[in-house]
Amino acid sequence: MTETETETTQAPSASSPSRRVFLAGGAAGLGGAAVGAAASAFVLGGSKSAAAPADHRVAGLGTTAIATPFPHQAGIAVPAIQQGHGTVAAFDLVPGATPAQLKALMQAWTAAIADLTAGRTPAGDADTTALGSGPCSLTVTVGFGPSVFGKAGLDPASRPAELAPLPAFRAEQLDSARSDGDLGVVLAADDALVVFHALRTLTRAAAGTAKPRWVMSGFSRAPGSSPDPGATGRNLMGQLDGTNNPTAAQPDFAGKVFVAPDAATAWMRGGSYLVFRRIRMLLTSWDAQTTAAQEKVIGRHKADGAPLSGGTEHTPVDLSAQNPDGSLAIRGDAHIRLAAPASNGGAAMLRRGLSYDDGLTADGEPDAGLLFLAWQADPARGFIPVQQHLTRSMDALNRFTTHETSALFAMVPAPKAGGYLGQALLDPGSA
Amino acid sequence: MTETETETTQAPSASSPSRRVFLAGGAAGLGGAAVGAAASAFVLGGSKSAAAPADHRVAGLGTTAIATPFPHQAGIAVPAIQQGHGTVAAFDLVPGATPAQLKALMQAWTAAIADLTAGRTPAGDADTTALGSGPCSLTVTVGFGPSVFGKAGLDPASRPAELAPLPAFRAEQLDSARSDGDLGVVLAADDALVVFHALRTLTRAAAGTAKPRWVMSGFSRAPGSSPDPGATGRNLMGQLDGTNNPTAAQPDFAGKVFVAPDAATAWMRGGSYLVFRRIRMLLTSWDAQTTAAQEKVIGRHKADGAPLSGGTEHTPVDLSAQNPDGSLAIRGDAHIRLAAPASNGGAAMLRRGLSYDDGLTADGEPDAGLLFLAWQADPARGFIPVQQHLTRSMDALNRFTTHETSALFAMVPAPKAGGYLGQALLDPGSA
Repeated sequence: MTETETETTQAPSASSPSRRVFLAGGAAGLGGAAVGAAASAFVLGGSKSAAAPADHRVAGLGTTAIATPFPHQAGIAVPAIQQGHGTVAAFDLVPGATPAQLKALMQAWTAAIADLTAGRTPAGDADTTALGSGPCSLTVTVGFGPSVFGKAGLDPASRPAELAPLPAFRAEQLDSARSDGDLGVVLAADDALVVFHALRTLTRAAAGTAKPRWVMSGFSRAPGSSPDPGATGRNLMGQLDGTNNPTAAQPDFAGKVFVAPDAATAWMRGGSYLVFRRIRMLLTSWDAQTTAAQEKVIGRHKADGAPLSGGTEHTPVDLSAQNPDGSLAIRGDAHIRLAAPASNGGAAMLRRGLSYDDGLTADGEPDAGLLFLAWQADPARGFIPVQQHLTRSMDALNRFTTHETSALFAMVPAPKAGGYLGQALLDPGSA
Repeated sequence: MTETETETTQAPSASSPSRRVFLAGGAAGLGGAAVGAAASAFVLGGSKSAAAPADHRVAGLGTTAIATPFPHQAGIAVPAIQQGHGTVAAFDLVPGATPAQLKALMQAWTAAIADLTAGRTPAGDADTTALGSGPCSLTVTVGFGPSVFGKAGLDPASRPAELAPLPAFRAEQLDSARSDGDLGVVLAADDALVVFHALRTLTRAAAGTAKPRWVMSGFSRAPGSSPDPGATGRNLMGQLDGTNNPTAAQPDFAGKVFVAPDAATAWMRGGSYLVFRRIRMLLTSWDAQTTAAQEKVIGRHKADGAPLSGGTEHTPVDLSAQNPDGSLAIRGDAHIRLAAPASNGGAAMLRRGLSYDDGLTADGEPDAGLLFLAWQADPARGFIPVQQHLTRSMDALNRFTTHETSALFAMVPAPKAGGYLGQALLDPGSA
C-alpha cells in the first residue's frame, strides 16, 4: 500500500443514526465508506492547479468526510490542505486510573471518532451542537505523552527513546500548566462548531478516566478564501509559512513523517511524533520594523515568499548567494538559513500550524501567534536539532517570538479494523 | 430609500492598489462598487429556500464584498446570514487625546474600513497577513461608549439617554477590565485571518490616540456547513439560537433595530445601540441534565427548536398552552417565556451572537459560551427590560450561564459620501 492509497477501516455503524438529515436524504451515494473514499481521492490528489479541488472543498464543505489513510491516522498528512479550524487538547488520567479504564477510553474514543468524522451521531450522544452540520472534513488524531508511562499499568521502562521529554531550549518561557499531558488530541475541521462538539464528545467519554489539562484553538485560511486552495498560507506576521514543507509527492515523505513499518517500537509503526509549541508573536515590535528588515529576519520576501537569494516562492534557497557588496543574501542569523535541513543534518518535519488570536495579554499586547504543530518520525531527527540550532545560533526571529507552552505526543497508528487506538501499546498480544 | 435598498458610499480609491491578485485579474466585473452591489443584492435578498444563495456564499467566499446599507453601517442587519468569524473590541482614548486626534482617528478608520471591506490594501499598510485572501464578506462596525463623553472635547451632558451605562443586573459577575470602553468595534468575515488583519490595521491606525482595551473573538456556522444557509444556527448548548429574531422582511424591523430618522439625538439617526455581553455557559452542568430537562429550561425542543407548546421551529409560541395534567407546556421560568416580547412590553432586539471557545478556566471547566450581541433602537425598549425580567423572574437558564463582561456602544450611522464615521457627533456643523 502506498502513501497515496487509503483504506476505510470503520464500516458504517448500522446502529448509529445519521446526524445529518441532508446526508441521508440529500446527497445520493454519500453514505459511509463511499464518502470517505470520494473525499480521500480528492484530498490525496493534492493538485494545486485544477479548479475542481477548490470547488469540491468549498461546495462540499459540509458533506466532505476524510477517510483514515491507513496505516496512519487522519489529520497528519491528510487532508493535504489544512482545514480552517483546529483545536489541540491534552488530557491527564485521573489518579488511580486502571489499565482497563484506559483501554475502555481508547475504545470509546475510537468509536466516537469513527462516527464524528463520518457525520454520524455517536451512540448515546444527546449533544445537538453540530446537528445540521456535515462532517466538514473533521479529523481527530490521538496519541500518548511521556507522562502516561508509569500510569494505568504502563511500564515506565517501555517508553520509547523518541518519547523522552523534550530538552530545555534557550530562551523559552514555558507555562507548565499549559504544557505536556498524558494524552494528546488534535482536532480539525472546516467549521469551528464541529470541532468544539467533537472535543466535548471526547471529554464526556473520558469522564472518570481522564480530564482535560489544556485546550487551545486556532485557525488557518478558510476554504475558498483564496482562489488557489493549494497556495501556502500566511501566519500572523504576514509571511507565507510552510513553503519548504515536505510533500506527499516526495519519495522520502513517509520516512520523515511516519514511524517505519520495521521500527523497534512496534506499537508506533505507522504513527508519528507530534511536537506542539504555542509561539506568541510580539506583533507590536514586529510591525515597528520596515518590510526590508522583516525580510532579512526571515530570509524571504514578504509579499511572495521568494528567498532573498532570488527566484520565486518555490525556488530552492541558495544559502551561499551574495549581495553585490559581498554580504550574504540570506543573513547568517536568518530564520530560513538556520532552520534549513541543510543546516541541521537533514532534519525535517511536517509543519501544520494554526494561527491563534486570544485577545490581549495583561499588558494590552496581542495575545496571538502560532500554534506550531510539527510531525516527524523521530524528534531527534526533526524538531529537537532544529530548535537547538535556532536558539544557539540566535535566530533573528527569536526577538519577535516567545515559546510559551510545549508538548510531545506519540500519535499512534490508525486502529486496525475492529481494533482501537493504541491497542498495540495497551494490549500487545491482541494487536 | 427602503430597508432593502443599499448605496455604496465609498467610491473605489484609484490610488489604492488591489490587495488581491485575483480580484484584479480573475473575476471579471468584480471591481469596486460593482462588488458591493452584487453582494448586497444577494445578502439582502435573504431567501432561505433557493439553492443560489448557498452556492453564492460558498463559492464566492473570497470574493464577496458587503456593501454599506446606507444610512446604516454594515454588520448590523447585513449580511443577513452572519459570517463565520467575528471579533468584538473596545478601545480607550489615551489620556489627553484631543478633539482633532479623535476626528483624525475616525477619518482614518473610515478610509481603512472602505478599503478593507472591498479587498483593497489601505494606503501605507505593509501588513501582508491577508494578502491573497478576498474580502470574505468583511464588515467593520464602529461606535462610541458612554465613557467617551467627557473626553476629547465631548461634552458629558451631550451623552444621549440611550447611552447611559447599563444598570446592574442580578447575579451578573462582571470583569470590569474586559467590560465597557470609549470606542467599540465589531468585525466579522468568513475568514478569521481577514478579521485579525482588519483589527490590526485599525489598531495601528489608532496609535497615539486610542489603545485596545479588550478583544474577544468567536464563531458561528461556517458557510456551506449546512445545506440551508438560512437555517437558524446553534449555540454551544446545542440549541437553535435566534429563531424569534426580527427579520428585515418584517415591517417594524427598522423601528426595533435602528434609531429613527427624526430621533432627538441627531448624530445617531440611522445608527443602532449595541449591547455586548460575554455569557459563559456552564457546560458540564448543562450536559449533566437530561434532554427533557434542558428543553424545559429553554421552552423549546432541542433537536428542531419547536416550542414545547407545539408545532415546528417557527410556529408562534403559545405561552398559555397546557400539558394534559394542566401544567404550563412552557414553564413559568422557561427562557423563551421570560424573554418573549409579549412578556416585556414588546421589547425586542436583533441578536447576532457568536460562540466562543477559549479553552479551559483555571478550574478546568470549559471557558466557552456566547458573545451576545444585541442591536436595538433603544436599550430601554430592548435589552434592559428583558434582562431585568430574566433575572428578577429567575430565568431557569440563569443556573447554566454567567454574564462575565458587559458593554454598551452607540454604533453610529454610515458615513455620508466623503464624510467619516461619527462626523455628526464630532463636527455637527459639517455633517
